Amino acid sequence: MPTSRKKQKSAAKKKPLKGSPKGAPDWDDASILKIARKSIQALKPYIPGKSIEEVRSKYNPSVITKLGSNENPLGASPKVLEALRAALPRVSLYPDGASRDLRAALAEAHGLSPDQVLVGNGSDEVLLLIAAAFLNPGETVLVSENTFSEYEFAGRVMDGKIVKVPLKKNRYHLAGFKKKLALKPKLLFLCNPNNPTGSYFTHAELLDLLQAVPRRTLVVVDEAYCEYADAADFPRSRELLDAFPNLIISRTFSKIFGMAGLRLGYCFAHALLIRETARVKTPFNVNLLVQAAALAALGDKGFRARSIANNLEGRTFLESELEKRGLEYVPTQANFICFRTSRPAVDLCEDLLKQGMIIRALRSFGLDYWNRVTIGKPEQNVRFLEALDSALTAR
Amino acid sequence: MPTSRKKQKSAAKKKPLKGSPKGAPDWDDASILKIARKSIQALKPYIPGKSIEEVRSKYNPSVITKLGSNENPLGASPKVLEALRAALPRVSLYPDGASRDLRAALAEAHGLSPDQVLVGNGSDEVLLLIAAAFLNPGETVLVSENTFSEYEFAGRVMDGKIVKVPLKKNRYHLAGFKKKLALKPKLLFLCNPNNPTGSYFTHAELLDLLQAVPRRTLVVVDEAYCEYADAADFPRSRELLDAFPNLIISRTFSKIFGMAGLRLGYCFAHALLIRETARVKTPFNVNLLVQAAALAALGDKGFRARSIANNLEGRTFLESELEKRGLEYVPTQANFICFRTSRPAVDLCEDLLKQGMIIRALRSFGLDYWNRVTIGKPEQNVRFLEALDSALTAR
Repeated sequence: MPTSRKKQKSAAKKKPLKGSPKGAPDWDDASILKIARKSIQALKPYIPGKSIEEVRSKYNPSVITKLGSNENPLGASPKVLEALRAALPRVSLYPDGASRDLRAALAEAHGLSPDQVLVGNGSDEVLLLIAAAFLNPGETVLVSENTFSEYEFAGRVMDGKIVKVPLKKNRYHLAGFKKKLALKPKLLFLCNPNNPTGSYFTHAELLDLLQAVPRRTLVVVDEAYCEYADAADFPRSRELLDAFPNLIISRTFSKIFGMAGLRLGYCFAHALLIRETARVKTPFNVNLLVQAAALAALGDKGFRARSIANNLEGRTFLESELEKRGLEYVPTQANFICFRTSRPAVDLCEDLLKQGMIIRALRSFGLDYWNRVTIGKPEQNVRFLEALDSALTAR
Repeated sequence: MPTSRKKQKSAAKKKPLKGSPKGAPDWDDASILKIARKSIQALKPYIPGKSIEEVRSKYNPSVITKLGSNENPLGASPKVLEALRAALPRVSLYPDGASRDLRAALAEAHGLSPDQVLVGNGSDEVLLLIAAAFLNPGETVLVSENTFSEYEFAGRVMDGKIVKVPLKKNRYHLAGFKKKLALKPKLLFLCNPNNPTGSYFTHAELLDLLQAVPRRTLVVVDEAYCEYADAADFPRSRELLDAFPNLIISRTFSKIFGMAGLRLGYCFAHALLIRETARVKTPFNVNLLVQAAALAALGDKGFRARSIANNLEGRTFLESELEKRGLEYVPTQANFICFRTSRPAVDLCEDLLKQGMIIRALRSFGLDYWNRVTIGKPEQNVRFLEALDSALTAR
């Protein structure tokens, strides 16, 4: 690395540095690296699930079923669509930059004060804001292996030192995180239930970790899928918030509220942590339509209940069907199931794509033989199993 | 500063550092500063223009006219609203994270390739992404005095050293920027036409500066209001882009397209600059509805023409009316006019608020005796003048 950077330097010297309308020196890979931040060079582009359009243009199957991105199979609440329609005449006006009504509603829903709530353009932004507010260059960030990539992303953008803790038996290994506290990390990012395994860590495990974490270390628990969890020992994180001033809980409207296309994430924490995090947010980070939609979503308890019921039914069905087929899977607390196949998941998923069935091969999560399927509506789940059987039989 | 930080240290020592469910140590202003990044402490909250709701609850005037935030007085294009309505059934699906169709349309509209275009959650995000991709801690950022605050914000979030260049006769002083190149800045942020003065720098002035800027220094020209400019010597920035690989042009859908509530900004630059900037963007930074709306907006040339025509008519009218009243104003190339009063602008604007007329006192821009009024529809402009006359006469 030092050698190649030296080479870049001498190459650049030969070129005139001053731009001019005629024949200004162009960038190349070497010269652009001289000015871009080094820490961002390790950032790999995020690999999203396949879209319906991509599959249509590639294979043009008669039916396309999208179970690859953990979207809500019921769509969004009709009340959300109604609120969006009602807000359309106002799209030319700036939104409330402080998202006051929305933060008040979220605070009320969770028994908090509004100054303990921050909203962002998806959880992605919320996680990045936390890093931007607290992480100094070179400080350590603990993340798990085989988890959502945005924790590492946020750490790297702010030039943190990323240290990874392996999963243990497909679960977050909180004891492993505890050991790494010796590195004096500034931030811990935990995902519960974990994306993409669907496994969870318990209240007792989280409590044990929190009791070992010094206050100067912030613990971010991303609970994007927690509304689907029904295990009796799933963390009661809201309770823990009162006891641990260094705990930050992150949530999203993308899953249970069916608003992935709208981008809304939020987090809860001590008011002073929120105050500091809010310093780094841009003035109008949550758009006007999204604020209106989210308020409506919070008011529709029925949609939420239907989403949970559908998920529970599909979970029971799919887990038993995977079991019947002798396929290894991770018992899930989320709206997706992670299962293992003997062939590389990218191959299996390609076979499924040809049949119009979009699920996710977990190579980008470091799991080459694992697949992740979103729990769909009953007919979608049946269609998934048919496609799976066909793909497995064809071998 | 060193003394107070030492005090914090000894105070913190007395408290137990380990959180525990019972009586964990709470944050206070001193202890939170020990963990938050120092560079963000200088960030002041953005002060937006007053909203209609705020004015209603404060003074409850019979009519409220909002000319304080440079929104498009024609609202948004009906085609935009139609596209939003059509996209509603898809809000539960993730957007295209790469915004491919939108970037292709923007590229075509400007004679660029799609890999020269980046879109973001408002220009605010675009500016921040540029800083996040290129600005290392301690590197210098040149910004103007009396301009949009988000340039300084982006620089400070990334721990840059902010150096300010004063305006000269209410205009950006590019010769002043040129002199400061001796500081070897990494980034220059220029606003043209300038918010809040409405003044502009010329093609020749920009060209002269660009020719003096070394390639390792990036020049960001924020042209949020450029579509309203009609001066013959207004920069042809698109032309300059081909000649200067260190030039980045930033634009927005908030003004000419009437989409301030939706948050969409974009920038053009050399493909390699865009590639590096895109590294630091979150995977789905532009929401699904916004992508659909923006595509429709680009297709509605009529709305754009009507917006420009309305602005030109209002500009001529308001400038001549301010002149008649002997009020000093800055000839504008934007959709607002900056004018001076003998009383502090905050007082004048409060008097106008009581009459339901929202304009902007420019204290937060460092201009205590200057006001900024958005050019409205003809009837709004007349109402503004009536309110202004009443407020000035009352003295």
